[in-house]
Amino acid sequence: MEYEGADPGTVRPGGRTARVRAAVLRAAGDAMAEGGFAHLDLADVARRAEVGRTTVYRRWGSVTGLVADLLTDMAEQSLPRTETGSLLDDLKANARLVQRTLTDPRQGALFKAVIAAATCDTRTAQALHRFYETRVEEWAPCVQQAVARGELPEDTDPHEVIRAVSAPLYYRFLTTDDRLDEATADRSAEAAAAAARAGVYARRT
Amino acid sequence: MEYEGADPGTVRPGGRTARVRAAVLRAAGDAMAEGGFAHLDLADVARRAEVGRTTVYRRWGSVTGLVADLLTDMAEQSLPRTETGSLLDDLKANARLVQRTLTDPRQGALFKAVIAAATCDTRTAQALHRFYETRVEEWAPCVQQAVARGELPEDTDPHEVIRAVSAPLYYRFLTTDDRLDEATADRSAEAAAAAARAGVYARRT
Repeated sequence: MEYEGADPGTVRPGGRTARVRAAVLRAAGDAMAEGGFAHLDLADVARRAEVGRTTVYRRWGSVTGLVADLLTDMAEQSLPRTETGSLLDDLKANARLVQRTLTDPRQGALFKAVIAAATCDTRTAQALHRFYETRVEEWAPCVQQAVARGELPEDTDPHEVIRAVSAPLYYRFLTTDDRLDEATADRSAEAAAAAARAGVYARRT
Repeated sequence: MEYEGADPGTVRPGGRTARVRAAVLRAAGDAMAEGGFAHLDLADVARRAEVGRTTVYRRWGSVTGLVADLLTDMAEQSLPRTETGSLLDDLKANARLVQRTLTDPRQGALFKAVIAAATCDTRTAQALHRFYETRVEEWAPCVQQAVARGELPEDTDPHEVIRAVSAPLYYRFLTTDDRLDEATADRSAEAAAAAARAGVYARRT
């Protein structure tokens, strides 16, 4: 399974410093997914990662510093967009990626924890905003290509279309008990495409 | 200013019990808006409400019990829908109500706090889900009337249309620094109306 914000700690190139970072961020993600932000503790993360406490304190300094770095890493490691040649199929691929991420037990719990943390901590909020900016930026070319193909009005704002795909999935995730299934993902892609075709996402002047 | 979830503690009929409840819920809302869920404390709420501690402990029992009752009250006290005779104008009225709620300093902070609390507490999550169900239920007739007027396909799911109006506003509120202005609210109403007209929100069989 692959997610919108890739699992930190997956195998990747780098020396000892990179391996330590990967282990610590993996442990931080596990701890957040299990207990939320409120119970995150640097000493516990060091123990889980089998890394010296001093290293963790020196490198990340605080829980908020650690979560900010986790979000940076999730953005860096996250998946490239899918390009199918059709706007609707590209948006469906995006929507299904978000849906798989939010319904995965670990990733879903981790996203809930960072969203909650961002509501009460400015630094985490900034890191979370950057994560979503990066993801929106990654997928925006699908909309630009649809404009170039003549599928959408010239002045369509690509970022707004991409955000419109995710919004219903996050809203459902946070405010209801309803299942987030593929049909829900497809519907959110269809809604974004229909509104974009109708010219709703025209850039504001 | 009037909000989607009305301010608890506003003047309303009732005897001493109702007045105590109103004062305690108003104080709980203030405390949540200022410090979030994590620092909510029954003794502090009692002090702010100028109500005996024992009364608060006996009646609400716990912080989660208090937050659940606050959400119940917010749903009960919240505003009725606007009916303009046109789907787009009804949805814009809904979107602007949500936008005003989320941009009001106290209400915005309070919603952030309850959404965060719901990510880590089941009882709060259930109360939050019921709050949104109530609000969606309140506005759904606008969509039913649009179907009856022939503005939308017969099989349109009213709840999905109403949720589609709120989703982009909440997503922007939680994942970006972008301003939530009236133009953003209107755009989310237009997107929901365009997608509904295109048949995206057909009931699933």
